[in-house]
Formats: sequence, structure tokens, C-alpha cells
Amino acid sequence: MKLEAIPLRIPEGCNIIVGISHFIKTVEDLYEALVGSVPNIKFGIAFCEASGPCLVRREGNDDELIEVATENALKVAAGHTFFILIRNAYPINVLNAIKAVPEVCTILCATANPVKAVVFEDEDGNRALLGIIDGFRTKGVEGPEHVRERREFLRKIGYKLAP
Amino acid sequence: MKLEAIPLRIPEGCNIIVGISHFIKTVEDLYEALVGSVPNIKFGIAFCEASGPCLVRREGNDDELIEVATENALKVAAGHTFFILIRNAYPINVLNAIKAVPEVCTILCATANPVKAVVFEDEDGNRALLGIIDGFRTKGVEGPEHVRERREFLRKIGYKLAP
Amino acid sequence: MKLEAIPLRIPEGCNIIVGISHFIKTVEDLYEALVGSVPNIKFGIAFCEASGPCLVRREGNDDELIEVATENALKVAAGHTFFILIRNAYPINVLNAIKAVPEVCTILCATANPVKAVVFEDEDGNRALLGIIDGFRTKGVEGPEHVRERREFLRKIGYKLAP
Amino acid sequence: MKLEAIPLRIPEGCNIIVGISHFIKTVEDLYEALVGSVPNIKFGIAFCEASGPCLVRREGNDDELIEVATENALKVAAGHTFFILIRNAYPINVLNAIKAVPEVCTILCATANPVKAVVFEDEDGNRALLGIIDGFRTKGVEGPEHVRERREFLRKIGYKLAP
Amino acid sequence: MKLEAIPLRIPEGCNIIVGISHFIKTVEDLYEALVGSVPNIKFGIAFCEASGPCLVRREGNDDELIEVATENALKVAAGHTFFILIRNAYPINVLNAIKAVPEVCTILCATANPVKAVVFEDEDGNRALLGIIDGFRTKGVEGPEHVRERREFLRKIGYKLAP
Amino acid sequence: MKLEAIPLRIPEGCNIIVGISHFIKTVEDLYEALVGSVPNIKFGIAFCEASGPCLVRREGNDDELIEVATENALKVAAGHTFFILIRNAYPINVLNAIKAVPEVCTILCATANPVKAVVFEDEDGNRALLGIIDGFRTKGVEGPEHVRERREFLRKIGYKLAP
Repeated sequence: MKLEAIPLRIPEGCNIIVGISHFIKTVEDLYEALVGSVPNIKFGIAFCEASGPCLVRREGNDDELIEVATENALKVAAGHTFFILIRNAYPINVLNAIKAVPEVCTILCATANPVKAVVFEDEDGNRALLGIIDGFRTKGVEGPEHVRERREFLRKIGYKLAP
Repeated sequence: MKLEAIPLRIPEGCNIIVGISHFIKTVEDLYEALVGSVPNIKFGIAFCEASGPCLVRREGNDDELIEVATENALKVAAGHTFFILIRNAYPINVLNAIKAVPEVCTILCATANPVKAVVFEDEDGNRALLGIIDGFRTKGVEGPEHVRERREFLRKIGYKLAP
Repeated sequence: MKLEAIPLRIPEGCNIIVGISHFIKTVEDLYEALVGSVPNIKFGIAFCEASGPCLVRREGNDDELIEVATENALKVAAGHTFFILIRNAYPINVLNAIKAVPEVCTILCATANPVKAVVFEDEDGNRALLGIIDGFRTKGVEGPEHVRERREFLRKIGYKLAP
Repeated sequence: MKLEAIPLRIPEGCNIIVGISHFIKTVEDLYEALVGSVPNIKFGIAFCEASGPCLVRREGNDDELIEVATENALKVAAGHTFFILIRNAYPINVLNAIKAVPEVCTILCATANPVKAVVFEDEDGNRALLGIIDGFRTKGVEGPEHVRERREFLRKIGYKLAP
Repeated sequence: MKLEAIPLRIPEGCNIIVGISHFIKTVEDLYEALVGSVPNIKFGIAFCEASGPCLVRREGNDDELIEVATENALKVAAGHTFFILIRNAYPINVLNAIKAVPEVCTILCATANPVKAVVFEDEDGNRALLGIIDGFRTKGVEGPEHVRERREFLRKIGYKLAP
Repeated sequence: MKLEAIPLRIPEGCNIIVGISHFIKTVEDLYEALVGSVPNIKFGIAFCEASGPCLVRREGNDDELIEVATENALKVAAGHTFFILIRNAYPINVLNAIKAVPEVCTILCATANPVKAVVFEDEDGNRALLGIIDGFRTKGVEGPEHVRERREFLRKIGYKLAP
């Protein structure tokens, strides 16, 4: 038995979404969920089949991102995990569509930060993805000036309205 | 403190769904979600109450599956986890209904593969379910012929349409 | 590398909800989801920013609960985790609204029980929240009399109807 | 054939929600959706059964509101329509839970304004609910000062945050 | 301009679901939503394309039900309406999956009762579906004995649990 | 009492979405739902306030589209109706986010076709929006060659995958 933290690869300007699903139909359903969310989204999907040939199953509309998703899936190698890399879109554009895919169980992270997958391996070499180290350890607490900056930032980029 | 991998039991022809929820009302709400999803579904539900008597709470419409769900719950023994065994239905028929149950927090797996629950135990013997080893370690990457077979399979069984 | 179980604080009469999300917009969107769920809800939200200044970002409508959420976030210190404390409302009143927030990935627990967060730390001090010990270890299985009491209790408090 | 506009009754301090559903199980499922949404909600539900005895089916936790819902249902008398009156809660607290009820087809209005139901009746006396006159005819367009007041109002009552 | 009530056809043992959607992709997405909901469901879908050739677009896994859906679509002939006939499944098994299809706007009815579509036609012959007469005019109000029978019926068929 | 069909305006390259909602908070919540759906979306929203000053309330990030939405709202002038014009995005990118807005009751159409709103007016001049004539009357039924073209078109533009 071992527990390890495996760095995943995220190309510049991309976000990664990691989750757990059920059944190889996942890759086509995630494809449709993503392509239908944002007109110009580019993405790659990789899913670790967990029985039979146990292959990484993959779809997408961008060869580089399919390759990166595959590389991450092979590193984690845990049954029924999936790895999505997106460009030209943000997680908030696609997360609710992914959650609604009928095979999807849960999403473990959605981020552009450096991440490590925390993987448990049993004595037979089979693996579970337990969680994700997403970015960096918390350093402190925001004060009133950070609150104002944070709220103003969200309004400047248009995500929220100001009175 | 210890970390262990506990095999769960899945009868032939069944799928297991494991998740985390809140409150004993979970078992009745999961019962209604499942019975309303597929006309002839057979299922058993077990939920680990996490306060007071700390009993496995259970519902279902199939005695064998209720027993198997209970057995799995007792093995894991982690507060607020639930275990569902289904027959005559597939996870894709029921997962979105389960996700929408107002007590459900998350789903950790949905599978017919052999599974082990990864459980953390503290010095008082209280436990957390951290993840699931679902089936077998990834062995490789699909090539073009596997992609074609995968897509054709989904179309042959009618889940997707072909031009 | 270390794995530890960190007790979180829950004031009397409150529930805690712990999850994983994406992006500092989370705190405003969770604020709106909560304030729009129950007319008199009181709550505090804290979210661990995972890049740049890595501050605990916080919102709410109750200073004490914001402080408690912040305290819990600082203890866990894992990027993109969030901590919500609620009063005058129950998790079943708010969980589906939280799941639907476009930044939210998953919810790890919703409970009024004593909880410990199971945290993995890598050699750089960065952290992942792997799961939650929610309440106490399972002690047994309900018998027919417990089933009757359970169902009657849910009907007495009006959550379900009796014939 | 006739087309008529039938005033519905809404007691002071209440909101009405009118929709279309399927099957008598609707009243129990709406009951559970409402009672689980807001701790102190008071409500009445009436649903027009559309086959067999064609009775108004009703549930709720407030006798007066059940009576008002029934009165509105009898006035409209259109198969599979439902009428909900709520107190101590607002439509935004309950609408998403109602939309997620598995029998619910659609919601035609949610309002505290005076309303009239627009009903079509065929030559056999059977009826369809086509829409709702909700409050009063539009009088003009908001100018910059109205925008500021509107946004400030939502922030004063705490539904939105200000920088 | 005219307003008419057009009877739709529902074969014995089937339910009809009528709604409004957007874009010809609707028929494939409804196909996938239905086939993924219930293992042995049989169904036919027809959708009124509203531009270009303005054809009834159709999918399904049962020729008779595709024909009946088409016949109903041609009678209504209103742009962007859809008509689904299902067998071996009930509306409660499929309505939430249909509501979640990304092209679907709303559902106007789900029923096994005789129905008439209320259609408005403008001077150019273009049409809007305004509502559905679903079954029969309401005849009265349930009394205590009907309430008991109703609740007992739902428990006898297993949709709800009794204490 | 009168029933009329009012043409709405849709600028070239845009889609219109028409629905029914509750409360002036709708315009800010729709704003956030739309801006969070697609990175470069341009849109205008108008909502018919139904009490007090009964003004058209409006938000958006494109002045022309806000004007067009307002013009359509004034023509319909029915309480609690809303009108959204979008550019650089398609209805499938935004409809599920709109359906999930807690004030939204229903969506009556989503289309780029010419549309007319079917409006009922009572003797006091108050109005209900009953439905939408979306595009043109159905002209026929697709044959096998149309099916093949339709499916191939969806695969050519990448919305679906081919074996």
C-alpha cells in the first residue's frame, strides 16, 4: 500500500477539471457537454476504463489537449477517473454541464493552478484518486482592503454589477 | 491512525453506488429517488447514522440487496456514508436523481467492478471514507481501432445514433 | 508528506458544510445562494484562495459565523476548499443551491456532528482535503422497531406524510 | 369554445405559484419539496386530477392556505394544473425545488401581485390553462436613477453585495 | 387569426409529453435523454423544424411511436414544438432528464389522458402552441376518505413508504 | 378582452429567449447567468416589472441588445415576462443556466427565427403572454435522406461524434 502525490500537467492558459465517473460512455457525453457549452472551446478528455482492456479512453477537439489529458490519466491510472483540459473557456462556463452528465459522480478540482493528484495504491497495484492539492497553502486572511479589491475586481471584469 | 482498503461486496449483475450524505432522512429520499427512476428497479440502501445510536439505517425493495448494502456499510462504518446496490437498472438511469436528493453531498463511485473503500480511522476509531479503488489499474491508451470499436459499441446498443 | 485529522469548530446549533470550489468568485456566489435559500438564515463563508496572495476569502451575514468559517479554513489551509457555517437553517434547505453554484466542484460533508478534516500535506507544505470524519463510528444495524421510530419521527416533524 | 380570465385569490402576505404537472403523486412530492426548503414555511397545495373522479387533490401544513389553493383550483378546473400558496417564504426560496419535482412540467407564475388565469374551454367543458395575467401592464422604461435605486435596494436587503 | 383545440393521439398504454425546444439537435438529445433513462423504454420523438424546409424531424426506437409522434406534430404544426410518446416507462422516469436537455425550453404536458392541443394561428398560417387540455374538467374536492385512499395507493405501489 | 400576435425584433445574427420570471432581482441574476456562461457573449435583458411603477427593468453588456430587448418588452407589456437577446453565443450555451435562475418560472422560446408573441389583454389592459409563434408552419416530414443529412450536419459542425 502506498500514498503518493503526482503532479499533473496543465499547459499555459488552460484549466484542468478532474473527476470520477462511470462507464466509457462518459467520454462521448463529456465531449457533447463541453462542445455545447462555449462556441469556441478547445478541449481534451481522458477517462481511465476500469475493466477489460483498462485503456485510457479519449475524445476532444484539440489534439494537444487530448494528449495532455491522456498523459495525466496515465500518471494517475485510477479506475473511472477523468481528466479534462480546456482552453478558450473557464471552468465556470462548463462545470454545471459536467455535473449534469448522467455518468459523472463528482468533480475533485477545477483549476489553472499547479496541482498534484493524491493517489492511494493497494498491494495489487490498483488505485484510487483521493483528492487534489490545488495550488498553494493558505497564507493568511483577507482584510477590509482585500475585500474591496476582490469585489471591485469581479465588477471590473463584468461578472457582478455595481450600484 | 490508520488507512486501509476494504473490499465491498457486489452481487453478480448489480451495480454499487457509494456516496456521502446528511441526516437519516437520506434513506427515504434515496428510496423515492430510486423507485421513481426505473419501473422495475430492485435496490437496497444503507446509510451510516453518525450520532446518537449510530445505526445503519436502511430501505429498499429487495431484501438481498438491503442485506448487501448493510454489510458494506458495516465494513466501512464511516459517518454519513451511504451504499446503494441496484439490479435491473444501470447507474446512468439513477445517478442524476441521486445527485438531486437534497441531503446528498457527493457520489464517490458508481460501478459493477470489484471495489475497495479507502478508509481513514482516527485514534478514537471514528472513520472517513476518502475514496474508492474502482476496478483495475490503467494498462494503456486506446488507438484508432479501439476508438472505432468503442463508438460502434455505444451505437449498437442504442445509446448513441449513427449517421 | 503527512496525513492528519484536524478537528473543525462548529458552534452550538449550527451546521457546517465543507466543499471544493474554483476561483474567488465562489464566496459571492455562495453568499447569494445561501441568502436566497431561507429568509432568516445566518451564515459565514470562508474559501482558501490557492494562488497569488493565498488569502482566506470570506463573506456572510453573521460576524461570528464568518470568524468560525475563517478559523476552520486556516486550520485546513488547502487550496480551493470552502467552509460554510449556517444557523436558522438546515443543510437540506441549502445543499441543492450550493451544488448548483457554477464554481462548486463537490461537497464533502454537511453536518452538525463533531468533524475532523483529513488533510494530506506534501513536502512543500501544500495541502489537499481528502475527506471528513463525520461524527462517530457505526455501532450496529437498525431493527424493525428502529425503522418504525425513524419513519414516525420524520412524519412527526412533518418532513413526510403518513396515510 | 371560450377563452376567459379568472381572478385567483392570494391572501395578504402570501405568494402564489401556478404550474402544470402530471399524476396525483404531485401533491405529496410538492409537499416534501416545500417543507424541505424553508424551516418555517406555511403552505397549501391543490392539484386538479384529470381522470377518474377528477378531484382537487390537496396537501399542505396550513389549513387556510390549503383552502385558498383549493378555491383557485376549482375556479380554473383545468386538468393537471397545480396551485401553491406560501407564507413565511418567497418564491426564490422554493422555485428551484419545485422545478426539480419529477412530475412537474412547468411553472406559469410566481407572484404576490393580483393575477388572472387565462383559461380555454372546449365544447365539452374541458379546460386548459394558457397563461397568467401577473399584475399590471407595463408603463415605461427605467432610467439611470431607477437603475441605481433598484440595484441599491437589492443590496440594502442583502440579496447582493456592494463593493 | 384563429384559435383551435386539436385532439392528439395516444396509443393504449402510452404517455405523451409535449414541449417547446430550440434547434434540430433536439431530436438527438431527446433520444439520448430517453434511452438513458429506463433500460427497456420504447419511444418516438417528433420535432417541428421552424425554418428552411420546416420538416418534422424524428428519432426513436419504436416505429409505431415515431409514427404517432409525427402524426401529432403534423396536426399541431407549430414551430419548435416537440411530441414524445413513451411505452414501458412513465413520465416521472423521464421528465427531469428532458427538462435538462440544453435545447428544451419548457414542457406543456405529460399524461396518458385524452388531450387537445390549443393552437393559435396567425393570418400567414404560422402557429403557436399555447397549452394543452389534459383530461377532464375538475368535478369536486377530495374529502378525508379520498386523501387516505390516495396516500395508501401511493404506498401500496411502492412510491412512498408507510411508518 | 383581446388576443393578438405581436412581432418581436431580432437583429441579424442574434437569438431571442423569452420567458416568465418573478421579481426585479431577475435582471441581475439573468445578467450573472449569461455573463458566466460564455466568455465573449454579448446580451441585453429586459423584464416587465408588474407592480408599483411597472417599468421595464434592464441589464446587459451590449447597448444595442439592451435597446432591442426593451423594445420587445414594451410591445408585449405583460407582467413578469422577460426578453433576452444574445450575440456570440447560442441558446444551447445558456438555456440551462437560465432555467436554473431561482426567479425563472419558464422559457417560452429560444430562437433566431422571426417570432410573434401571442398576448391576451383583459378589459383593464393588463396582459398575459400565452405563447410564441416561432418561425414557420410545418411543411412535411423528413425522409431517410433528410435524416442522414441532419445527422451528418450535426457531426460536421462537431456537436456529435461519428463512429
